[in-house]
Amino acid sequence: MRISTFLRLAAALLCAVLSAHSVQAEETLRDQARKLFDPIPQTAPATPNDPVTPEKLALGKMLFFEPRLSDTHGISCAICHNISIGGVDGGELSGDRNVKLAGREVQTVLNAVFNKSQYWDGRASDLKDQVVNSVMANPKALLKSRGGPMAINPVELTASKQHAIDQLRSMPAYVDAFKKAFPEQPDPLVYENIGRAIALFEATLITPDAPFDRWLVGNDTALSEEEKTGVKLFIDKGCASCHNGINLGGGAYAKFGVVTPPAVEHLPADDQGRFGVTKDIADRYVFKIPGLRNVELTAPYFHNGSTFDLSKAVSVMGASQLGVALSDDETRKIVAFLKSLTGRQPEVTLPILPPRSH
Amino acid sequence: MRISTFLRLAAALLCAVLSAHSVQAEETLRDQARKLFDPIPQTAPATPNDPVTPEKLALGKMLFFEPRLSDTHGISCAICHNISIGGVDGGELSGDRNVKLAGREVQTVLNAVFNKSQYWDGRASDLKDQVVNSVMANPKALLKSRGGPMAINPVELTASKQHAIDQLRSMPAYVDAFKKAFPEQPDPLVYENIGRAIALFEATLITPDAPFDRWLVGNDTALSEEEKTGVKLFIDKGCASCHNGINLGGGAYAKFGVVTPPAVEHLPADDQGRFGVTKDIADRYVFKIPGLRNVELTAPYFHNGSTFDLSKAVSVMGASQLGVALSDDETRKIVAFLKSLTGRQPEVTLPILPPRSH
Repeated sequence: MRISTFLRLAAALLCAVLSAHSVQAEETLRDQARKLFDPIPQTAPATPNDPVTPEKLALGKMLFFEPRLSDTHGISCAICHNISIGGVDGGELSGDRNVKLAGREVQTVLNAVFNKSQYWDGRASDLKDQVVNSVMANPKALLKSRGGPMAINPVELTASKQHAIDQLRSMPAYVDAFKKAFPEQPDPLVYENIGRAIALFEATLITPDAPFDRWLVGNDTALSEEEKTGVKLFIDKGCASCHNGINLGGGAYAKFGVVTPPAVEHLPADDQGRFGVTKDIADRYVFKIPGLRNVELTAPYFHNGSTFDLSKAVSVMGASQLGVALSDDETRKIVAFLKSLTGRQPEVTLPILPPRSH
Repeated sequence: MRISTFLRLAAALLCAVLSAHSVQAEETLRDQARKLFDPIPQTAPATPNDPVTPEKLALGKMLFFEPRLSDTHGISCAICHNISIGGVDGGELSGDRNVKLAGREVQTVLNAVFNKSQYWDGRASDLKDQVVNSVMANPKALLKSRGGPMAINPVELTASKQHAIDQLRSMPAYVDAFKKAFPEQPDPLVYENIGRAIALFEATLITPDAPFDRWLVGNDTALSEEEKTGVKLFIDKGCASCHNGINLGGGAYAKFGVVTPPAVEHLPADDQGRFGVTKDIADRYVFKIPGLRNVELTAPYFHNGSTFDLSKAVSVMGASQLGVALSDDETRKIVAFLKSLTGRQPEVTLPILPPRSH
């Protein structure tokens, strides 16, 4: 055997071994990932307690875009949960309005149906509860009854229930739409049904087919090597111990600063998180673990929107939650992975809403 | 001939005569109407000075819905010119925000391309001018230079030109979209082009196929008898002497209170209308004649949004502009006609806007 032939054979053998090793590594990483994460489904999840009908969905969409539900007639769900920009607002708006008045950054409506609870402090158990008991509860009454810091949000729609009902009742097209959506009820234009319809529409706002999900279900080329290394780092460093499940978060609570308190700019003392809801001292500075789906679109980050820089947010998380100082290279790769969580955004045609005469 | 046969023949003859008379009346009314009004076309009007391309339209739509053009990152064109509710806002919003700060009710963006000028005082000559020179001009500078009452509007986007440009330049997808929209320019992400693109998108927001238009082009059954009588009254009483053309208004200026000054609630002394723009004493309390397309959707009415009641608005107009006391029956029929001006609303799918990192 000539030496060159031997070398070619040896090289081929080495390639085969490396390739098998790489395939094995890919499979091992994917198996690991599949135990931790689930892809966003192609269609909205079933709602066994409140079956979807086209009429309910049509009504829910109208109400989601309906500014006349608010006392000022200027704020709809769609303004702060802007479907064009990741289901959140433009950043400074909440930085200004919400942080000053209600304390926290807007959370995205996209894929929110997969969260175990709603809000940074989890005070709403589901989307209907978020609409009915929180968003549209009378802000003045809430302000008076405010049990703890940041326990309520008086600025969302600043809508009183009666005002919302009165507005809708004044528009015959809404009376008709409620009858069609809830045909079993004699007088369906009631507050509870506003929440039911909006929640069902919101449940359709999901973002399947992110590169990460396509990789997770078997497409090897859906992620770059850098992004795959990011997945591995995200798991190995411990990020996935909190950020897991379908939304990579949204399923549990955690203290912000469990290892090392973050800088005060990220965790101002006056917002004690879930403590405001439970009054349990163990819940001081505990927040719902935010989901990371479409995180590239939802800046600024943290409950007070204290940074627009995703790399910085990753780095702060590493230090505060894991006691890990991530290198710039590691952070870059984790960020590359996080950007692979951006899915196909919902295609929503604006509803045409009925005229009103007063 | 038996008497009953004679009666049947006489009745048939009478019917034929009445029917011929009715057909003739219908044709006469339609001929009269055709001299005064034009239907909204099925497609957006040509823009010979700035030919439409799919890339320009796509960019214009993004910018129309882009809240990050504003200094607060919370206000886009689409919020006050809400396509879901007739291209205006929810009423009290402008009643509160605009009247306090800028003095006037939002005018609809729908069919605005057919107006001869923009704003209640006509200070913008076209849609591009409205965007470039008015909406997004630096509000602080404008406030200082404010020449006359209500001559500028500092609240629209409260956007400074440089801020808008900086925001867009920070998003690679916008840099790319401007290059594709204006391929002949080396550095197309400039202020003028924001206005050009938005104006071209806005020109597509037209509402063809209103019942009145279908009648105008020959469909006898598109209007009810009451609505047809409304058309006749609208012409005979003199309304159409100002409210004519494709938009039934929007083409000229008129003094509010030309015959009798309206109640002060409808014409507060401090807003002198076009006088603020021209400084010509003849323009005191002169306003652009508003178009009446989709008027059912655009309450509240008048430049200060002083009534939600279309019947009242018609009645005030009759008295102030024509010196005519319309009976309740006449008003009802004119309102029925006005409601036949509601066309097919634009079907707009929300754009997905690029993420930003600061």
